Amino acid sequence: MKGTVLYGPGDIRFEDREDPKIVEPTDAILRLSATCVCGSDLWPYRGLQPINGPTPMGHEYCGIVEEVGSAVRSIKPGQFVVGSFATSDNTCPHCQYGYQSSCVHREFMLRAQAPFLRVPQADGTLVPTPGGAPSKDIVPSLLACSDVLGTGWFAADAANIKPGATAVVVGDGAVGLAGILSAKQMGAGRIIAMSRHGSRQKLAREFGATDIVAERGDEAVARIKDLTKGIGADSVLECVGTQESMAQAIGATRPGGYVGYVGVPHGVQLKGENLFYTHVHLHGGPAPVRRYLPELIDLVLNGKINPGKVFDLTLPLYQVAEGYRAMDERRAIKTLLRP
Amino acid sequence: MKGTVLYGPGDIRFEDREDPKIVEPTDAILRLSATCVCGSDLWPYRGLQPINGPTPMGHEYCGIVEEVGSAVRSIKPGQFVVGSFATSDNTCPHCQYGYQSSCVHREFMLRAQAPFLRVPQADGTLVPTPGGAPSKDIVPSLLACSDVLGTGWFAADAANIKPGATAVVVGDGAVGLAGILSAKQMGAGRIIAMSRHGSRQKLAREFGATDIVAERGDEAVARIKDLTKGIGADSVLECVGTQESMAQAIGATRPGGYVGYVGVPHGVQLKGENLFYTHVHLHGGPAPVRRYLPELIDLVLNGKINPGKVFDLTLPLYQVAEGYRAMDERRAIKTLLRP
Repeated sequence: MKGTVLYGPGDIRFEDREDPKIVEPTDAILRLSATCVCGSDLWPYRGLQPINGPTPMGHEYCGIVEEVGSAVRSIKPGQFVVGSFATSDNTCPHCQYGYQSSCVHREFMLRAQAPFLRVPQADGTLVPTPGGAPSKDIVPSLLACSDVLGTGWFAADAANIKPGATAVVVGDGAVGLAGILSAKQMGAGRIIAMSRHGSRQKLAREFGATDIVAERGDEAVARIKDLTKGIGADSVLECVGTQESMAQAIGATRPGGYVGYVGVPHGVQLKGENLFYTHVHLHGGPAPVRRYLPELIDLVLNGKINPGKVFDLTLPLYQVAEGYRAMDERRAIKTLLRP
Repeated sequence: MKGTVLYGPGDIRFEDREDPKIVEPTDAILRLSATCVCGSDLWPYRGLQPINGPTPMGHEYCGIVEEVGSAVRSIKPGQFVVGSFATSDNTCPHCQYGYQSSCVHREFMLRAQAPFLRVPQADGTLVPTPGGAPSKDIVPSLLACSDVLGTGWFAADAANIKPGATAVVVGDGAVGLAGILSAKQMGAGRIIAMSRHGSRQKLAREFGATDIVAERGDEAVARIKDLTKGIGADSVLECVGTQESMAQAIGATRPGGYVGYVGVPHGVQLKGENLFYTHVHLHGGPAPVRRYLPELIDLVLNGKINPGKVFDLTLPLYQVAEGYRAMDERRAIKTLLRP
């Protein structure tokens, strides 16, 4: 088969790779129905995160089970499955507490921008869709559950969204937009999206944003204070991962409010003294997508949510390099790839 | 009157001060029954926190109301009252959310190591004891509510102690010990105290500690992992405020667990990348003691808790300098001062 490999900044190649095979008896092999490019893939693509030589890319996936290892019990060939970007046995203590992305058997997936994929810990990582293979038009929304929606959902959950809450979403990438959708589903009364891009503002409103703030930094914080009678927001979703975005998120939160942060931090330093006097709750990390998958798949299949709208560019898989370029140049929010 | 003033490292003086007077119509003047030295007073006493010239000291207090300003409604002369180390109007939005120590009218108290004290925002800051002045032997426990118990209680609350939880308390100062008492009251099933001082270990066990860990740093974290089947603790109370203590607290927490931090951070830096992958919840700050005061006073008056045991040295107020020395040299856990 051919798969996607990053060779260096801006250098994505779609090249011959070995077909994946069962390695451990707990593995499954999937034939992917769709995969995509993640905002986090842009960090190494832009040279902002070092790589150790050629790196196979992709960690979002859904598709048909081709084969399973001898120890796999619940996952069967022929099922349509969605899996998390982090593998999990779903039985260890951390999994039982709902933190499957800290599973003792966790591996962060790679190699998913390809037609076939080996998934470790298949029983604990994959969730089959009830009722068999879904129609093609619903696949993008199921694919979104694998990371972007699951991560936005965790941001909203970590930010303790309650019915009627005032929420702020920092970041208008696909995760931020999915965070808006999630906050809306959880009953937020007001959702302030921080965005300065027309197409993203439009989707933000469609997903449930009630206000848009285009300012950044201290001005953005001041604007949010204005919008909340000087109090600050109950719940803030940090979906970027920079020092500036984290400072905005914390600054926009009322004392006693909650910051859910899911943007992988790059160079973020929090000064204990400052954090102390803000009185915010801080929680985040790699999203435990597996915890949410059954509920999210159900919401998608029942037509309650349509997170697949974050994909505003669909390409055949072999054009993956163009998919990266379009996102890097902000011509696309998120690129879906069809093997 | 005479009051306590810090002139520089190690230089505590008990010297002539002006009698406090009503300044704002919302003020009250108290005749203090007891006051004390706080662990946080040791930071400037040791020269680890700069002061701007001679600084009147003390922020823990209880006593009899002598006089109230013209706008004070609920607090009356003759009442015995306990107040928080942070003033609050108890009506602003932050107060309504339970974060009185972020009140828009917050002032951090000073000047309480004295026989008389002016308390701003008297109606919102002070809580009278039901049934009038308490017996003298219960005064230390009521005084403890003003900060040390209120702060330990907040640490336990911020660390989300639930019945049966495994808790760790970092720090065996008076706040840490009060945190143990609080965790016990909230139903923690196991309480691991980090302490290497015999007298403090004894009080820790009396307050509810089930295990003592004397190691520090990475060894301490490894020991706690051992004690929790490799999982880590559900709830960790950080009651020191140094880089090492914060690292211990975060390291001892299981993924998805909670760190409640109340030690005022001194030089603490949290690296976003590291925090992200720990999956801990982080919450803390100056304790909203006012939120808890009615409940804590009730627990003390009903004999359910005896937090006054943290005072293992009682001195007449004029010997305040010796009170500081004894704590600095770890001859005392906490010094109570009788005006």
